[in-house]
Amino acid sequence: MNRRILVINPNSNEAFTAAMDRSVERLRFAGGPEIHCRTLAEGPFGIETARQSQELIPSLYRLIEREKGNYDAFIIACFSDPGVVGAREFSAKAVIGLCEAGVASALSFGERYGILTNLDDDINGELRLLRTLGLEARLAGIEAVGIKVPDLVDTPEVFEALLAGARRLERRGARVIVLGCAGMTPFVQRLRQETGLWIIDPLMSAVGLATATV
Amino acid sequence: MNRRILVINPNSNEAFTAAMDRSVERLRFAGGPEIHCRTLAEGPFGIETARQSQELIPSLYRLIEREKGNYDAFIIACFSDPGVVGAREFSAKAVIGLCEAGVASALSFGERYGILTNLDDDINGELRLLRTLGLEARLAGIEAVGIKVPDLVDTPEVFEALLAGARRLERRGARVIVLGCAGMTPFVQRLRQETGLWIIDPLMSAVGLATATV
Amino acid sequence: MNRRILVINPNSNEAFTAAMDRSVERLRFAGGPEIHCRTLAEGPFGIETARQSQELIPSLYRLIEREKGNYDAFIIACFSDPGVVGAREFSAKAVIGLCEAGVASALSFGERYGILTNLDDDINGELRLLRTLGLEARLAGIEAVGIKVPDLVDTPEVFEALLAGARRLERRGARVIVLGCAGMTPFVQRLRQETGLWIIDPLMSAVGLATATV
Amino acid sequence: MNRRILVINPNSNEAFTAAMDRSVERLRFAGGPEIHCRTLAEGPFGIETARQSQELIPSLYRLIEREKGNYDAFIIACFSDPGVVGAREFSAKAVIGLCEAGVASALSFGERYGILTNLDDDINGELRLLRTLGLEARLAGIEAVGIKVPDLVDTPEVFEALLAGARRLERRGARVIVLGCAGMTPFVQRLRQETGLWIIDPLMSAVGLATATV
Amino acid sequence: MNRRILVINPNSNEAFTAAMDRSVERLRFAGGPEIHCRTLAEGPFGIETARQSQELIPSLYRLIEREKGNYDAFIIACFSDPGVVGAREFSAKAVIGLCEAGVASALSFGERYGILTNLDDDINGELRLLRTLGLEARLAGIEAVGIKVPDLVDTPEVFEALLAGARRLERRGARVIVLGCAGMTPFVQRLRQETGLWIIDPLMSAVGLATATV
Amino acid sequence: MNRRILVINPNSNEAFTAAMDRSVERLRFAGGPEIHCRTLAEGPFGIETARQSQELIPSLYRLIEREKGNYDAFIIACFSDPGVVGAREFSAKAVIGLCEAGVASALSFGERYGILTNLDDDINGELRLLRTLGLEARLAGIEAVGIKVPDLVDTPEVFEALLAGARRLERRGARVIVLGCAGMTPFVQRLRQETGLWIIDPLMSAVGLATATV
Repeated sequence: MNRRILVINPNSNEAFTAAMDRSVERLRFAGGPEIHCRTLAEGPFGIETARQSQELIPSLYRLIEREKGNYDAFIIACFSDPGVVGAREFSAKAVIGLCEAGVASALSFGERYGILTNLDDDINGELRLLRTLGLEARLAGIEAVGIKVPDLVDTPEVFEALLAGARRLERRGARVIVLGCAGMTPFVQRLRQETGLWIIDPLMSAVGLATATV
Repeated sequence: MNRRILVINPNSNEAFTAAMDRSVERLRFAGGPEIHCRTLAEGPFGIETARQSQELIPSLYRLIEREKGNYDAFIIACFSDPGVVGAREFSAKAVIGLCEAGVASALSFGERYGILTNLDDDINGELRLLRTLGLEARLAGIEAVGIKVPDLVDTPEVFEALLAGARRLERRGARVIVLGCAGMTPFVQRLRQETGLWIIDPLMSAVGLATATV
Repeated sequence: MNRRILVINPNSNEAFTAAMDRSVERLRFAGGPEIHCRTLAEGPFGIETARQSQELIPSLYRLIEREKGNYDAFIIACFSDPGVVGAREFSAKAVIGLCEAGVASALSFGERYGILTNLDDDINGELRLLRTLGLEARLAGIEAVGIKVPDLVDTPEVFEALLAGARRLERRGARVIVLGCAGMTPFVQRLRQETGLWIIDPLMSAVGLATATV
Repeated sequence: MNRRILVINPNSNEAFTAAMDRSVERLRFAGGPEIHCRTLAEGPFGIETARQSQELIPSLYRLIEREKGNYDAFIIACFSDPGVVGAREFSAKAVIGLCEAGVASALSFGERYGILTNLDDDINGELRLLRTLGLEARLAGIEAVGIKVPDLVDTPEVFEALLAGARRLERRGARVIVLGCAGMTPFVQRLRQETGLWIIDPLMSAVGLATATV
Repeated sequence: MNRRILVINPNSNEAFTAAMDRSVERLRFAGGPEIHCRTLAEGPFGIETARQSQELIPSLYRLIEREKGNYDAFIIACFSDPGVVGAREFSAKAVIGLCEAGVASALSFGERYGILTNLDDDINGELRLLRTLGLEARLAGIEAVGIKVPDLVDTPEVFEALLAGARRLERRGARVIVLGCAGMTPFVQRLRQETGLWIIDPLMSAVGLATATV
Repeated sequence: MNRRILVINPNSNEAFTAAMDRSVERLRFAGGPEIHCRTLAEGPFGIETARQSQELIPSLYRLIEREKGNYDAFIIACFSDPGVVGAREFSAKAVIGLCEAGVASALSFGERYGILTNLDDDINGELRLLRTLGLEARLAGIEAVGIKVPDLVDTPEVFEALLAGARRLERRGARVIVLGCAGMTPFVQRLRQETGLWIIDPLMSAVGLATATV
């Protein structure tokens, strides 16, 4: 039987899930694992606070519980890694978080990494998560682009804001940049071209990791 | 054109390269990147000292230099990550080391990880490398199995030694185990079955990472 | 109007809440803040896994939300500090976790501290929490007493197990011991007398901190 | 018999001791511990250097030695924590330092903390002390207000300088601010009101800790 | 004029000072700096507690103050580095502590270092000092030999205890050993011969450092 | 027989070797160890990349191998410490690197140290090396002066650039400055005079360390 990976979008915005599905398309190979993307219907429309990130966990657990016989790996596709540790406890299958997988992968692409995030208020929570994960030693910095999740649409202004953030990270010493929000994914190639830096889309890291494991 | 990954075995033991080639077979998908394995002819027959690990670097650089137009990613398949940093400097392509990729991947499979290594004398060097990589925060310990690289053949005694080492790591708190020598790869499944722990073969991690990136 | 502190027992075992109420009695002073203890009715009967600790958070948030006009400080009385960070986000009042407050207080009583916990399986989660809190630098060790939460009753056998654990921590360099489970509270005085070490009951630390603040 | 706490002002400025006495008034409860404040007559008039902080230690030890039968806890009320470790060695009673207690308490009020200090030249010494205490992981920064200890009087200019320092700390990520000099105590409420940040007066933390312990 | 280094023995035991004088003899070269050794008359006969180490500081400062015009560097010859930081503040001359200089030197001789100390009760204080100095990353461990300072005389039993301690450190991964007490100096050569490890006498490190600087 | 120290300049620029020879002159004492300086003929003319630093290692090893019977200590006189760890493995003699010895020595001269380096692109590699060495805790910062190695000649412009870099480090909290390139050695005295800071020439530290050891 084929191996199967479930990518769970823990917010309830179907457009995000669809974008993830397009993203992972290039990691679907004949003979490789099936990769399914699923929306957590009970999740908030967007995840912008620690509270939202934690309140969705019980329904996330229920989804994993229901599907744990059907999949070989679960990816929780939110950069705050909600519920990852608890799900590992009750699931014998791999449970992979975007921040942990994305930052860990970034280490292989440059001496120090930076993170692009939405708002200044996100920074402390991400520093806390990096410390929890034991992955802060090579952090060059976190830079906020000043754009909320729903406003991360593909316009020249948004691209300029991301590019400016990437350049600030480069000046702080980053040689690889981790995108801290799924809404930044469409800009990966352009950011790479303009800056010459490696740009990590954590969803790719997580799927690559799951593929190598299952 | 298809994407191509070059796995370089930096020792000159062709049997190791052949084993790597068999190992990565399960990550070769139709439509996925080509994965080639190559022996570094100028490398030592086995890499057991820091000196050997460093003396091979110039020829390794020459190989990467020659092939940098032909591949999209290079994997340096030795757990001491020889030449990784220098090669990143002159190659615009990804250069991935086994220790960095393997340990970084292990973080997604359990709270603390352990490393199985050959000999007690390897431990300080590996601790140094983990500190260099900024990946020591979640280390539970390193355990030597007391078997030199060339003696890591598939016998019941060798398996027992590996299993005993894995159990010592588990008692020290490891929930995921990284194999610190390519010669341990044939035992991945059996170690997983006997211990119930996640067993990480760093070559798989590195190829998965390269695949997700190229 | 008098200042008021709410101690929330996030498990649904009323006996625990009653014991907490007796414990805090000696910090109730005329003219001091009122200290109320409350059971989280929707909590699990005991909190033994990360999953349980996370699943109770939404109902905990609802309780704090409801009561945030009525209290000046909230104490979440579980050593895994569930929901503390999220509650700080939406409550302008102090939100205090037992592990954070207890371990932080312990630093004032000795060079290195140890933690007594129930089971070996708790250790990795507590190490992770200490790293999250940035409080691991002076940890001498964590020792499990091998007794589940509901079995922590006041018998000579239980006391012997706690005492043996405390002595193991002392041999590892601890000079102050933090009790990692509310069920250990009745033994504070006896452990102090037998070992001569400082014994920290984190609930006392949390209430003292809240009192000094409100 | 009532429990008793001795707050020792290790400088010989009686005005400081009087201000401390007024400060702790709100933690004196009927039935709670007695809190006495005492000037170290042999101390320097102000403590501005590491040398002064160390030269007062022998007379501080003599005072604690004389009073160790009369008190249940000693608070050494200087942010450089002079003599704390040595006094713990010969006194069976709690010995609490302002920096250790204040910073440890601050952790319960926000993800990262900042310290307001008098002069730029204080910063290295405070970083060293935080490293000694193992409490630097969540430091956002230390900002000097450019005002010497004796000039910290209650004028609009002084308040403006403190407020500006607090705002600089906030921009660096601090969500809770620890006052690094007893002379800043009169400004606690106004700083809290103007910034919305938690403001920690370490003397309150220390007395709260002593109260919860004795 | 010739450069001059003052080695201060901060205990009042003249025999220690004499032994130091003999020790440094081999670093006295024609044309090199003069090296004088001096007893701190007001010091305790032996320094065995943090309290003793701190109580001698004021008289140590007076000595340095008196001699600061006569010497180019001061070495405070006690492994607890008493008064080093304060003396640097008021002396423009180099002020060197044995622990800081000895451990820093040890790093150049092996991947991880160990410390031999007198008693188990010394360990926490030394760990604290190493953390203060920022030098704990490569510590393999501290082992007590169970012999008080005055009993460290040159007998076969004492040598056996030191040798056993050194071997325990080696098993813990130390490849270089720092002697944590001046009384261990006579054993340097024999320990080196028996173990093959590098043995660091911190007084030599400090004098070498002062010589290279003045 | 006299003790002998070999300083190896791993680049092939004889002018550098000659400058080193003049530098160490003041540490040559009658009766002290002989200090020889040698050019690594096979080295690059200047060492500006990680690749160059690693490619010279095999010839460096051969030189040490040839000379290991003739010298008591080897100093590898490049701030990237090439080959130090490997050479320690096969040489029973001391092998000392400039960065490790220089930074370790700097700790004895001030609370935090800064490093002056040539170019911004050097910074990440030096941070990595400091982390490898376990010496980053007291780093105030690294400042590039914007001058390549061959352009570090004794002109007023070069001195101004170094002085400006030193002042930037001072503002970041450095009280002692380590020169990160041998070409900066001629400026030691002037930098000290202008800034009042301690200026560490790592070659002096390394020779002092070797002298105290052999």
